[in-house]
Amino acid sequence: MNETMKHQHNHRSIRSFDDRPVEAEMVKQLLEIMNRSATSSGLQSYSVIHLTDPEKRQQLAKVCQQAYITQIPELFVFIVDNYRNYAIARAKGYEGNYHRTMDHFFRGIADAYLAAQNLMTAIESLDMGGIFLGSIINHPMDTIQILELPVLTFPVVGLGFGYPAESPNIKPRMDVSLKVGENGYPYWEDNILDAIKDYDEVMSHYYDTRDHNQRSDTFSNQIFKQALNEQADRANILEAVEKQGYLLRYD
Amino acid sequence: MNETMKHQHNHRSIRSFDDRPVEAEMVKQLLEIMNRSATSSGLQSYSVIHLTDPEKRQQLAKVCQQAYITQIPELFVFIVDNYRNYAIARAKGYEGNYHRTMDHFFRGIADAYLAAQNLMTAIESLDMGGIFLGSIINHPMDTIQILELPVLTFPVVGLGFGYPAESPNIKPRMDVSLKVGENGYPYWEDNILDAIKDYDEVMSHYYDTRDHNQRSDTFSNQIFKQALNEQADRANILEAVEKQGYLLRYD
Repeated sequence: MNETMKHQHNHRSIRSFDDRPVEAEMVKQLLEIMNRSATSSGLQSYSVIHLTDPEKRQQLAKVCQQAYITQIPELFVFIVDNYRNYAIARAKGYEGNYHRTMDHFFRGIADAYLAAQNLMTAIESLDMGGIFLGSIINHPMDTIQILELPVLTFPVVGLGFGYPAESPNIKPRMDVSLKVGENGYPYWEDNILDAIKDYDEVMSHYYDTRDHNQRSDTFSNQIFKQALNEQADRANILEAVEKQGYLLRYD
Repeated sequence: MNETMKHQHNHRSIRSFDDRPVEAEMVKQLLEIMNRSATSSGLQSYSVIHLTDPEKRQQLAKVCQQAYITQIPELFVFIVDNYRNYAIARAKGYEGNYHRTMDHFFRGIADAYLAAQNLMTAIESLDMGGIFLGSIINHPMDTIQILELPVLTFPVVGLGFGYPAESPNIKPRMDVSLKVGENGYPYWEDNILDAIKDYDEVMSHYYDTRDHNQRSDTFSNQIFKQALNEQADRANILEAVEKQGYLLRYD
């Protein structure tokens, strides 16, 4: 395994960071790497907000319901951005709604995640650590207001990083065989609960031995309990997408 | 710049490959790396289809309208997969619709792209090359049929790879300053066409000097022309998402 793959294999979410700041020059270099990410049809329909303002950090921490967000050394929020290309087309005289389609929205999502993972990889290659923050879309319209985003943009994911002050265990994943199918969907044999049994045991052991936040439970029990206690706050996320100017239907 | 970042900086789409096959052991190792990718709330709501069957390759090439898809040494299709966790919850006795929300759909999209970029990074770290295929969702229902996908799954992106038989130039990106805002959206000064002018020139030069497929054009002209000739085939992609069992509204 080469260095790159070792770092990838070693990925953990880091939530606690050293006081040591990340050098501005290093942040700049990381963003240049991010900028080389693959992008759907070359459109580059994503942007990134560097969040340093303590007040805005506090507001975002409230959306995320995660207080440590105020303490992360570096924080970037990835957004879908079809506003830029829309503005270009308008400036050239185009008057239609082409950039409002859900196809454009999904291309922006693609660009944002590819760039976010690329940035994370570069961060980890430098022996720093980070965390993806999906919770920034707990209340998308609040995040949009905090970041002062225009139409045809949409928050996707946050990425916080810095020099780690913790070294958590690697979180186990279910076996690759459950996720990879040959020429079709990887249907399991007989009962899914049998198929997931080994992973259930591994996860239960992982929670038993984890430093903080003890919670001995199997994966399948977690999935079941989450469904029972359904937190469906984000279920109607398309309403916010529509508010940002996208057309759920295009005729 | 370390080795990882050098490879990331050097990312290009590879469409032409050596006859040399990718060793099965290497593919296995790459999938193990992919399996370590970050995943929204640990749900692992994505899966991957390894497409080797020549007939299915041909069918997918038709969806993508890209003949070279039949010739790529290795081809993986990433899918949203909430079917697995839905099956787990059902097997435990849950009877609701929690896994049908658009929140779950978007989490699956996140997982799929993070895993896809991670796989690409590992591939490139081994001096192989690859290409992302967004065109697999040109006709999502066709792709779903080809891959024999169950409800609550959805094709996201293809990733083809192997040993490259070409070494294309790096495609220029617009300046980072256009994409990165400090504490808010990176609004440009005055006219967007002025802001994008330097990039327009770079792209025009890039197309002039590119080996194949000459097409001297500026970025802004491309954006304008694409809007005028709007190909909106994928605009109503949500219809297919709904057909796969997701609820666009959840009450």
